[in-house]
Amino acid sequence: MSNYVTIELKSAQKIEFIDISAQVRDHVRASKCGSGILLVFTPHTTAAVTINENADPAVPHDIGEFLKRLAPKQDYFRHGEGNSPAHIMSSLVGASEILVVNNGEPILGSWQGIFFCEFDGPRQRRVFLKVIPG
Amino acid sequence: MSNYVTIELKSAQKIEFIDISAQVRDHVRASKCGSGILLVFTPHTTAAVTINENADPAVPHDIGEFLKRLAPKQDYFRHGEGNSPAHIMSSLVGASEILVVNNGEPILGSWQGIFFCEFDGPRQRRVFLKVIPG
Amino acid sequence: MSNYVTIELKSAQKIEFIDISAQVRDHVRASKCGSGILLVFTPHTTAAVTINENADPAVPHDIGEFLKRLAPKQDYFRHGEGNSPAHIMSSLVGASEILVVNNGEPILGSWQGIFFCEFDGPRQRRVFLKVIPG
Repeated sequence: MSNYVTIELKSAQKIEFIDISAQVRDHVRASKCGSGILLVFTPHTTAAVTINENADPAVPHDIGEFLKRLAPKQDYFRHGEGNSPAHIMSSLVGASEILVVNNGEPILGSWQGIFFCEFDGPRQRRVFLKVIPG
Repeated sequence: MSNYVTIELKSAQKIEFIDISAQVRDHVRASKCGSGILLVFTPHTTAAVTINENADPAVPHDIGEFLKRLAPKQDYFRHGEGNSPAHIMSSLVGASEILVVNNGEPILGSWQGIFFCEFDGPRQRRVFLKVIPG
Repeated sequence: MSNYVTIELKSAQKIEFIDISAQVRDHVRASKCGSGILLVFTPHTTAAVTINENADPAVPHDIGEFLKRLAPKQDYFRHGEGNSPAHIMSSLVGASEILVVNNGEPILGSWQGIFFCEFDGPRQRRVFLKVIPG
């Protein structure tokens, strides 16, 4: 038996922020959890989950472009696959986010959306959603 | 009905780390939760929550100054409001922290304090606190 | 009474990523928690917890080397102890990670391991593990 839900995603670019807010909200509503917290977790080491503005697509663009320039390939990297920048971005942004659930809804600020962050795409990806009542 | 608490804050500077450890501790005590976890979450996209040293105010100063220099304004930014650096800092530091609650107290290390991080102040801000027993 | 577990660690280098995945898994199994979430939290302000690839040791090496070069000592630092870089890395990577627990196991991706990140070693360190059923 599985007590968590898996979202399947397909990224199209090397670095891409995919807004999963609607899927997350639908899952929380379907869970019938009135009050608690929600864990949004990605099981990939070259991806991440972040919360940021989803009203203007320029915001995730600017964050992705910043990260790309912050962590370019370096001569001192030893990882043979060549995707150390993506692993670095993953640890900087983090594999998960947690939200408050109240009255059956995930509580986000007016401008907040939840993004799956692709750093080594395009790839098939997954995000786990887990509600804890309380 | 709301099962979480909101702290209201007023930042005074563009970049500012506000120590909210005492308010967080008071809330956990008032919740009468003997054991569990505590979520500290900010619903803003140009702010964050972090845990770091609160004994020497030079520590949050140095972190803020580092972030300011790490993410200055760039010609390639597309977000029209001009506060992309603050959005970037928000995703780097993260919107939340989670702590262990034991014997009715949030468990922090000897040097750890909980900070609300303002990256686009001065503004009126909020932080959500949510205790999950367990 | 304590409802969380403490792992004791000893780092050997200034910057070091210590794989604690096996200890975390053992604790979750011993907790007999069938389903829920797991909090992995370090109570130190010059350390962090991250999830990244643990198959190739070059990955944590590259992340550590990147952070070392990203946040070197600076003239503008005011913190007298000289370890502001480690405090900065701690806030960038974060003090904790949270995982899904299902069928008595912490759920990690194929390539994911859990690392304690030392940024100011060598030192004696601790990590707290707390399972919340749900």
